[in-house]
Amino acid sequence: MVASALTLDEIVARFGGELIGDGARLIHQVATLDRAGQGEISFLANPKYREKLGATRAGAVILSPEAAVGSPVACIVCANPYLYFARVAQCLNPAALPASGIHPTATVEAALPESVSVAAGVYIGPQARIGERVSIGAGCIIGAGVELGAGTLLHANVTIYGGCKIGARAIIHSGAIIGADGFGFARELEGKNSGTWHKIPQIGRVLIGDDVEIGANTTIDRGALDDTVIEDGVKFDNQIQVGHNVRIGAHSALAGCVGIAGSATLGRRCTVGGGAIILGHLRIADDVNISAGTLVAKTISRAGSYTGAVPFMEHAAWLKNFARLRQLDAMAAKIRALEAEVEKLVITQSEEKL
Amino acid sequence: MVASALTLDEIVARFGGELIGDGARLIHQVATLDRAGQGEISFLANPKYREKLGATRAGAVILSPEAAVGSPVACIVCANPYLYFARVAQCLNPAALPASGIHPTATVEAALPESVSVAAGVYIGPQARIGERVSIGAGCIIGAGVELGAGTLLHANVTIYGGCKIGARAIIHSGAIIGADGFGFARELEGKNSGTWHKIPQIGRVLIGDDVEIGANTTIDRGALDDTVIEDGVKFDNQIQVGHNVRIGAHSALAGCVGIAGSATLGRRCTVGGGAIILGHLRIADDVNISAGTLVAKTISRAGSYTGAVPFMEHAAWLKNFARLRQLDAMAAKIRALEAEVEKLVITQSEEKL
Amino acid sequence: MVASALTLDEIVARFGGELIGDGARLIHQVATLDRAGQGEISFLANPKYREKLGATRAGAVILSPEAAVGSPVACIVCANPYLYFARVAQCLNPAALPASGIHPTATVEAALPESVSVAAGVYIGPQARIGERVSIGAGCIIGAGVELGAGTLLHANVTIYGGCKIGARAIIHSGAIIGADGFGFARELEGKNSGTWHKIPQIGRVLIGDDVEIGANTTIDRGALDDTVIEDGVKFDNQIQVGHNVRIGAHSALAGCVGIAGSATLGRRCTVGGGAIILGHLRIADDVNISAGTLVAKTISRAGSYTGAVPFMEHAAWLKNFARLRQLDAMAAKIRALEAEVEKLVITQSEEKL
Repeated sequence: MVASALTLDEIVARFGGELIGDGARLIHQVATLDRAGQGEISFLANPKYREKLGATRAGAVILSPEAAVGSPVACIVCANPYLYFARVAQCLNPAALPASGIHPTATVEAALPESVSVAAGVYIGPQARIGERVSIGAGCIIGAGVELGAGTLLHANVTIYGGCKIGARAIIHSGAIIGADGFGFARELEGKNSGTWHKIPQIGRVLIGDDVEIGANTTIDRGALDDTVIEDGVKFDNQIQVGHNVRIGAHSALAGCVGIAGSATLGRRCTVGGGAIILGHLRIADDVNISAGTLVAKTISRAGSYTGAVPFMEHAAWLKNFARLRQLDAMAAKIRALEAEVEKLVITQSEEKL
Repeated sequence: MVASALTLDEIVARFGGELIGDGARLIHQVATLDRAGQGEISFLANPKYREKLGATRAGAVILSPEAAVGSPVACIVCANPYLYFARVAQCLNPAALPASGIHPTATVEAALPESVSVAAGVYIGPQARIGERVSIGAGCIIGAGVELGAGTLLHANVTIYGGCKIGARAIIHSGAIIGADGFGFARELEGKNSGTWHKIPQIGRVLIGDDVEIGANTTIDRGALDDTVIEDGVKFDNQIQVGHNVRIGAHSALAGCVGIAGSATLGRRCTVGGGAIILGHLRIADDVNISAGTLVAKTISRAGSYTGAVPFMEHAAWLKNFARLRQLDAMAAKIRALEAEVEKLVITQSEEKL
Repeated sequence: MVASALTLDEIVARFGGELIGDGARLIHQVATLDRAGQGEISFLANPKYREKLGATRAGAVILSPEAAVGSPVACIVCANPYLYFARVAQCLNPAALPASGIHPTATVEAALPESVSVAAGVYIGPQARIGERVSIGAGCIIGAGVELGAGTLLHANVTIYGGCKIGARAIIHSGAIIGADGFGFARELEGKNSGTWHKIPQIGRVLIGDDVEIGANTTIDRGALDDTVIEDGVKFDNQIQVGHNVRIGAHSALAGCVGIAGSATLGRRCTVGGGAIILGHLRIADDVNISAGTLVAKTISRAGSYTGAVPFMEHAAWLKNFARLRQLDAMAAKIRALEAEVEKLVITQSEEKL
């Protein structure tokens, strides 16, 4: 399903939907409503951007039945325009994989299938098991005994510690570190060395399913004793930290800068907003959405959306309002006292009336 | 403007300001008020540190007219002492660039100017366009078609994905990743695969202006369809995440651990404090200052300072006060009820008086 | 103290504690209570997991005197079971260090002891001083003049800038960047370039003591003028940012995603929870515990636990309650007004009674 250009008829034949307009028009690329030209196809998924539809010069637009009415250009009507757009975009923009082969500057200590591509400066350790058509970018370090499933793509400078397993069709971005030691230390609690930390060897692995994407500079630690587990289809943005023995359910998606502490379990199809922190040893149910900036400090047993961030305001207003946070308990006590006094006043007044 | 030592007279001749003291004194380095010795020059910019001036043994101090009165040592009086100090420090501490040339372990698939320095283990892809006097540190990976402007300095282990453009005189620190895929996925909303994600190919680039500095392990994602744009003079600290299609206005400065979600637009000369999170698809005006730890969840249309962080307190006090956050709405309702009752009491009382 | 298997008698002979059960039982590995089998030893440190003890099939369990009563299997009774477990685990799981020697693809410009191991693609700059038995993983970049103490282990793709010093027995994980420039710029405040930033050369170093562990993708900046200092035994998790001129006291431990701004001083034996942000130029006393997600915006002079995070709730409840944060000051004013009115009512009522 890869093409350098498709007619609208061909697109509808492949991906379904209803075409309104000239099916012979040739589409060679995807673009935004603002910038698309005659040979490009765009999409309208969020009604907020509907006004942009009126001014678009796109060759065609993918949209929902409700939005189709006002379209000034050809359109493909379907139930999930953004998903449809993803499929067209994938078809017109296949991943530009390098030819198979091993760069002469690479150091490879394992047997590789012929279909594999290994770029400059790569190191692959002994007993690594690399699947068909795997592509390993320049400077990647693959530890001993690592398994990479068929079709997996590592961009440049990815590091995978020994023993970790990654499934098929993964995409791992530069700077990602898979399988570093979890943060496990026991503390001396008495004697002259009280307070010092002793390392717990981290002997678990990281096990990652199929179709997982891992963003740039994201880190996923190996398990302490058991394994850290990432199920199929999970998508990680950049700069995410996943602690040891975390388990993340299939098809969950985590935005940038999220931190998940050790032994937390996240359900299936969850979403976690940017910068959220999930504490350790707690469980989050399936289909939970955590808002950006939220600190999750206890188990969430029910699907739903959860939030804990504070609103921002002009600094002067903040100074006035946030000082009160230190007085909330005192404010609550004053309200209780007022309620008691007012009740007394009401009673006295009614007695006087009698 | 590079020198291994300068007299105070020479400094004032180059950078202006008024010298009080012996112009023949030779200065070879910059140092703090605490530690500076006879051949070193220090500065006093923050009145908070004024008491340190009395005890300094510096050869000279750069300071404002107000601070000059009490100086026990030679001083240079100027309007912006910290900026003046920066200029003197740059003059005495030029970047120690390696000699030009290509290390034999580097893999270079593009034509380079002779003035370029390429360190060990570097990979430079085809069609890369590297400017004069560019310095590329060990282990850097430069993708196909990347452009680096004249005088740009990449420290070790920087990764730049194909097609990205960086202007002149940039400084990019180790571990920075420029041009990884943005976090773009469309979700299936029905059927047996409901909840699964489909990748939107990220075909935009990262375009970075002149005089930009990018800190260690900072990540800037390529655009989804259009480009991610960083204007001239922007300064990024470490561990920052910039999502796809973000635009950051000239001369803005972002502290460590900031996250900016996709399609956010930040104005010119903004500052963003450490750990702040800026959500996607919103606009921040020019000259806005965001405090550390603030979550920016909506557009800011006016210059000014904005804050949203919560104060910390001893844990026991926090337990009492922050439990109340879940009751704020109930507290507000109680206040309203009390106001109504008190008003009724007041009316009844005045009626009784009649 | 390294072994592939030990009897319980041998364990108690080495590490102390009281054995209850068959001392001849052979233990070859550590495991969780859930998964441990006959040849494995587990531990029970947190009473919360006590019910798991009843069902364990472990060969033995390390536990406290209180927990020993109900143990269905052999046990070792001691005062600090987690610390005891750490020692047994270390003994059974020695770090798998590569043989000494320099990989042919490495570029080494300094003299090295014979006991050192240098992996593929490493670069070591001139005047670097590398201690005995140091192990440097593939792709590491060690700048000019760097010092690494005896027995220090660098995993793959670590970057250390020139001039930094690291003590003995450090463990540094992949992607860590030690010694990048601190974030120091002076701003023009007037004229046509008002708002532009001028770099302050960062001429300090990073000095790291003995027995420090640094997590994956953690960054520690070099000092601006003086040095950034990390004392002995400090443990850093992943994705931590440490600004220039920070000082961290011995045996402190910092969880993932923490950010510490420039010139902050953290005391000895402190702990900092995940995602906490510590602002610059402040001091934190010894033995302070900062909770996850807390923003520390001022000096903490006394040992203790400090928290500033907000509780999360269902999104609908959050919308109601957090809107009130903007009205806290108004709520406090209303409470004051009510108090005044109620007091007046009380006085009037008592006057009427007279």
